[in-house]
Amino acid sequence: MNRPIVVGIAGGTASGKSTVARKICERLQDCRIALIDQDSYYRDLSDLTYEERLEVNFDHPEAFDTELMVSQLRQLKQGIGIEKPIYSFKECLRQKETLRVEPRDAIIVEGILVLGIDAIRKELDIKIFVDADGDVRIVRRLTRDIKERGRDFESTVTQYFKSVRPMHLAFVEPSKRWADIIVPHGGHNVIAIDMVVDAIRQKLQAASRAEGKA
Amino acid sequence: MNRPIVVGIAGGTASGKSTVARKICERLQDCRIALIDQDSYYRDLSDLTYEERLEVNFDHPEAFDTELMVSQLRQLKQGIGIEKPIYSFKECLRQKETLRVEPRDAIIVEGILVLGIDAIRKELDIKIFVDADGDVRIVRRLTRDIKERGRDFESTVTQYFKSVRPMHLAFVEPSKRWADIIVPHGGHNVIAIDMVVDAIRQKLQAASRAEGKA
Repeated sequence: MNRPIVVGIAGGTASGKSTVARKICERLQDCRIALIDQDSYYRDLSDLTYEERLEVNFDHPEAFDTELMVSQLRQLKQGIGIEKPIYSFKECLRQKETLRVEPRDAIIVEGILVLGIDAIRKELDIKIFVDADGDVRIVRRLTRDIKERGRDFESTVTQYFKSVRPMHLAFVEPSKRWADIIVPHGGHNVIAIDMVVDAIRQKLQAASRAEGKA
Repeated sequence: MNRPIVVGIAGGTASGKSTVARKICERLQDCRIALIDQDSYYRDLSDLTYEERLEVNFDHPEAFDTELMVSQLRQLKQGIGIEKPIYSFKECLRQKETLRVEPRDAIIVEGILVLGIDAIRKELDIKIFVDADGDVRIVRRLTRDIKERGRDFESTVTQYFKSVRPMHLAFVEPSKRWADIIVPHGGHNVIAIDMVVDAIRQKLQAASRAEGKA
């Protein structure tokens, strides 16, 4: 197998980055794609009490177990399967179970800080930043947190101004400068998703032809 | 021949958009590409005196003969060759000679306002905005105007603040919202140029396969 193509997809909360990642994977079902989402690599906080865990800033780079994420990403690049952690957002704990991810031709690495954390960014071949205006993102996040996650308006807004927004301005937004392309309008941007899919497909075909010749 | 793919490339002055357009054309030499640059469609000002011409705002949408540009673009899309105007920047006049452009599989439409002018934007299949910070762009423009065009620092700066910058803020920058993808770092962004090239190539191959089957 050729060394896989690694595509990073960053963006603010509710920017549509996971929708973009999912649609790319769906569109490339005939190829072999692995998805590595940064959310799965939240640090295990089992040494803290539940109350202490609620005080943790989950939007700061330190909230993620980047060492594990990078080491697993490197394993995949070397053709070795991994046991991806499964994180419980309800308990703020890493679960005992893991998810087997096999090495693939392309790896999508998705999360708020995959461009903002140097060690992850250095592993990426193509760097994408999914962009959406702040007002659009907060409305999407409120809708999701209230309707899908059963949270109330006030706690979502409090968390947004306490950690989500300051960390976005400090770490996520500035990481846009590392992007190779910026995708506006998030998950609804069919043409940009098409372009990324076409580009990955073209690279996989070229690699496969080169392998055939070798 | 299939209906050609039309790719629009907009961006501010000295953002690198014409470099991006040129590199895409170079990379796709095995395909057949036509380049339509908005600069060729400046209005002919032969009814004005030379002094009057110098007062014209060349950064406003009205400076361009959009009717001609759109009608020629539509001709190319229908498989009909065009006589593209040649504009003399020295005299601010359209020359008597024209440049023959044959219909091609893909058409690159490049210029500051190809997204900002509705009638042009509506003709585009893929809309790209090449982005660069204002400080980077003005330094590039100064370098180009002084070194390559023999203009002096003061007149370049005066024109920049009198028309280039206000028109950029009024018409070019807001047109970014129409973009399907935003390309930062302009002409040096090899990965983004690669992606656009791969995407065009993939679309041309798919169209060619579809035609073969038909």
